[in-house]
Amino acid sequence: MSDLLQKAKLVKNTTTNLATKTTDQKNNALTILSRELREQKAFIISENNKDIERGRANGLHESLIDRLILNEQRIDDMAEALLQLAELNDPIGDVMEEWSRPNGLNIQKTRVPIGVVGMIYEARPNVTIDAASLCLKTGNAVLLRGSSSAIYSNTALVKVIQDALKQSDLPNDAVQLIEDTSRETASQMFKLNDYLDVLIPRGGKKLIDTVVANASVPVLETGAGNCHLFIDETAKKEMAIEIAINAKTQRPSVCNAIETILVEKNWAENHLSELIAALQDADVEIHGDSFTMAKGSNISRATEEDYETEYLDKIVAIKTVETVQEAINHINRYGTNHSEAIITENDANAVTFMNEVDAAAVYHNASTRFTDGFEFGFGAEIGISTQKLHARGPMGLEALTSTKYLLHGNGQIK
Amino acid sequence: MSDLLQKAKLVKNTTTNLATKTTDQKNNALTILSRELREQKAFIISENNKDIERGRANGLHESLIDRLILNEQRIDDMAEALLQLAELNDPIGDVMEEWSRPNGLNIQKTRVPIGVVGMIYEARPNVTIDAASLCLKTGNAVLLRGSSSAIYSNTALVKVIQDALKQSDLPNDAVQLIEDTSRETASQMFKLNDYLDVLIPRGGKKLIDTVVANASVPVLETGAGNCHLFIDETAKKEMAIEIAINAKTQRPSVCNAIETILVEKNWAENHLSELIAALQDADVEIHGDSFTMAKGSNISRATEEDYETEYLDKIVAIKTVETVQEAINHINRYGTNHSEAIITENDANAVTFMNEVDAAAVYHNASTRFTDGFEFGFGAEIGISTQKLHARGPMGLEALTSTKYLLHGNGQIK
Repeated sequence: MSDLLQKAKLVKNTTTNLATKTTDQKNNALTILSRELREQKAFIISENNKDIERGRANGLHESLIDRLILNEQRIDDMAEALLQLAELNDPIGDVMEEWSRPNGLNIQKTRVPIGVVGMIYEARPNVTIDAASLCLKTGNAVLLRGSSSAIYSNTALVKVIQDALKQSDLPNDAVQLIEDTSRETASQMFKLNDYLDVLIPRGGKKLIDTVVANASVPVLETGAGNCHLFIDETAKKEMAIEIAINAKTQRPSVCNAIETILVEKNWAENHLSELIAALQDADVEIHGDSFTMAKGSNISRATEEDYETEYLDKIVAIKTVETVQEAINHINRYGTNHSEAIITENDANAVTFMNEVDAAAVYHNASTRFTDGFEFGFGAEIGISTQKLHARGPMGLEALTSTKYLLHGNGQIK
Repeated sequence: MSDLLQKAKLVKNTTTNLATKTTDQKNNALTILSRELREQKAFIISENNKDIERGRANGLHESLIDRLILNEQRIDDMAEALLQLAELNDPIGDVMEEWSRPNGLNIQKTRVPIGVVGMIYEARPNVTIDAASLCLKTGNAVLLRGSSSAIYSNTALVKVIQDALKQSDLPNDAVQLIEDTSRETASQMFKLNDYLDVLIPRGGKKLIDTVVANASVPVLETGAGNCHLFIDETAKKEMAIEIAINAKTQRPSVCNAIETILVEKNWAENHLSELIAALQDADVEIHGDSFTMAKGSNISRATEEDYETEYLDKIVAIKTVETVQEAINHINRYGTNHSEAIITENDANAVTFMNEVDAAAVYHNASTRFTDGFEFGFGAEIGISTQKLHARGPMGLEALTSTKYLLHGNGQIK
C-alpha cells in the first residue's frame, strides 16, 4: 500500500475517537505540544538547516530561504501561538439551534468536527504546526502534504507533534505527513474522497488553481485579492488619503492590500494631485487613466491588464469614475470578491456600494487591511475564503466544523 | 458562442440585480409564476405529451413514464407549492451576527445569495419549477440542465417561468435552460467556475458520482442513504417493531428508509422472532445472520454485500450484535453518513450512539424517515446533503445562501 493510502487510513481511523474528546483533553494536547516545541528546539533547527542548505545549494532566492527558516524566535512564536489557541472557545459540541416539532420530536443542530482535513501547502514550515493545531483544537484529523523544499523541517515538526500526541489523550495517529512530495501523490490526494472530507490548499495562485481544477474532494478555496478602494465625491480628503496609503503600503504583498483606486471625478478634480503626491512619497508607482496622468507626473498609462492585476507590490492603478454605479461595475468586473472599500460621507451611496459589490468583506470608511481572522477577533485563522460555499472571508475555528442533527423522540413514526 | 456559455453569461449578468430585490418583489414573482402555471396548463400538458410519446416509443419503463407525467393535478400541486414558498421567511439580508472591535470597527455578518446555481437533474420535470423557485426566493440565478427525456416539458416550463419573470420586477434572464443535453455540454458545465458558484446534482447515484468526480465548480452533494436501525437491549418491544416497520416499509424507495437492522443479542433472544414475523407480514424480504436465520423461516443468509447495499426496496438485512459499540462500528463502516437510529431506554447508550455515529441525522427512539426538509419544519427542501461542508442533512432555503461581511468605520487603518 502506498504511503499516502496507508497514512490516509491511519488518520481516518482516529476521527470517531477525536470527535468525542473534551475541550480540556484537546487543550492539554496543545499545551504539551507547545512545551515539546520548546524542548526539541535544537532538533528542529538542525533538521531545518538541512532544508536551508539544500535550498541555498539549489540557488533558492533569499526571500524564499527566509520563509523556510525556523530559528529560536520563530519556534518560540509557534509555541506561544499554541497556548493562545488553547485559550480560545471550542466550538465543538455547541447546540446551534434547537426546536420541537408538532409530533414532539426534538431537533438539535450541533457542531461537530469535519473529520479528516487534507492540507496541501508550500514552503513555510510553520504551516505544519498551524494547520495541525487548528485541526486538533476542532477535533479533526489531518493529512499534511508540504513541499519538498521543507521536507526535513516538516518531518521534524510532525515527529514533535506525534511525540506530544503520545503524551496526551488524543489518538497518536491523528496527524500524518505525506513524505512523498511528488506531483503524482498530490494528484492521488485530490481524489481521495473515501478518506478526506475537505482539502485546504495554502500557497500561491498556481497551487490553489491546480487543486480547484483537479480535486474531487471538496475544496476550501483561499483565493487572490484584487481589491479596490473607491473614493466617492463626498469623501473626507484626509481620511481617503490615509486609508489609501494604509491599504496600499502597510503590507503590499498580502491579499487584502488594494490594487486599484477608483476616484469620483469631482473629488479627483480637487484632491487627486494630493493623493498622487502622498502615494509617490510612499514610493508607490502609479498607473493611471488620462485624467490621473494630467494630475501628476511620473505616471504611466493604465491598461486593461492593470485592472486585472494583483500587483502584490508598491504599484497601484488609479481610474476616475463618474458615479458610484460605475465604481461598482468596475469592481464586479475586475475584482476577485475579496475585500472592497468605499470612502464617502454619503450614506445612500455607502448602502448602494455595500449591497451591490459582490465580495467577502465590504468596508465603509475603513481600510481593506482588516480582512483577517485576528483583526475580526476570531483569535485564529485558517485562511481567507473567496468562495461562496461553507465559509466566506476570514475563516476561524468554526470554518473547521460541520454540523450534526440529534433527534430525540418517544416512538415517533412517519 | 455555445448555447451553454451564452446562457451562463445571461444568468451571471442578473446576479447583482437579483441580490438587491426585496422579499416582496421575489414573492410577487413566485405568485405570478403560480398563476401562469395554472393559466398555461394546456400548453404544458401538450408539450409534456411529446416527451411521454417519445418515451413510450423508446420503450421507457412505465415507472419512469410516470415520473415524467405532468397532468392537471401535478401542475396544480406545483402552483400551490409556489404560493407556500412565497409565505416562507426570506433569509436574504438577515444580520446573522454583529460585533464591534476595540478600534471601533463595526462588523456585520449578513446573508446574501450564492450567485449562480447550476442544477443538473434527471427525468422529473417538476424539478425545473422546484429548483428555479427556490433559487429565485433566495435571490439566486439558475442555469438548469435537465435530461433529454424531459426536454419538451422542461423547455415549456422555463418558457412559463420567463413569461412570469417578464411580468415581475426580477430580471428576465435569471432562469435559463441548457437545451443541448449532450454529455459534452454537461462536462463543460462541470468546469464553468467563472460563471457558476455551485453545482447541485439531483438524481441517481451515478449522476451524482459523475458530477462529484468531474466538477471543478463546488458541488452540493446529495448522496445515498444506507441507513440503520439499532435495537438495543432495553428497547421497548412495541416501539422497536413499529419503528422498524415504518422506517423500512412506509416508503422503501427513499434515501432515509433503513436497509439494515442491528439487534442486541438479549433483545433478539426474546423478541427477534416477533420482529421477523412483523416484517414478513409487511412483505419484507429478510437477509439475516445465523442467529437471525434460527429465529425465523424464509430468511436468506446476509453477506458482506448486503451490508453495503442500499436496497431501496422491501428487503432488509438483520444482524445481531453484542454491544452498542459493535453497532456503532458496523454503522461507521458500512453507513453513508445519512440517517441512523437507536431504540433504547438506556440513556447512556443513546448518548454514546449519538456522539459516535457519524451521520447527518442521528435519532433516539424515532424513525429515520423524518430526515426531510418538510419534516424538519424548513418548509422547503433542495435535497439532503451527505457531505460535511456548507450544509449537512436536509437543506432548506438557508443552504442556498452565502454570507457577506459589512464593515462600518470612521477612518480606521491598520
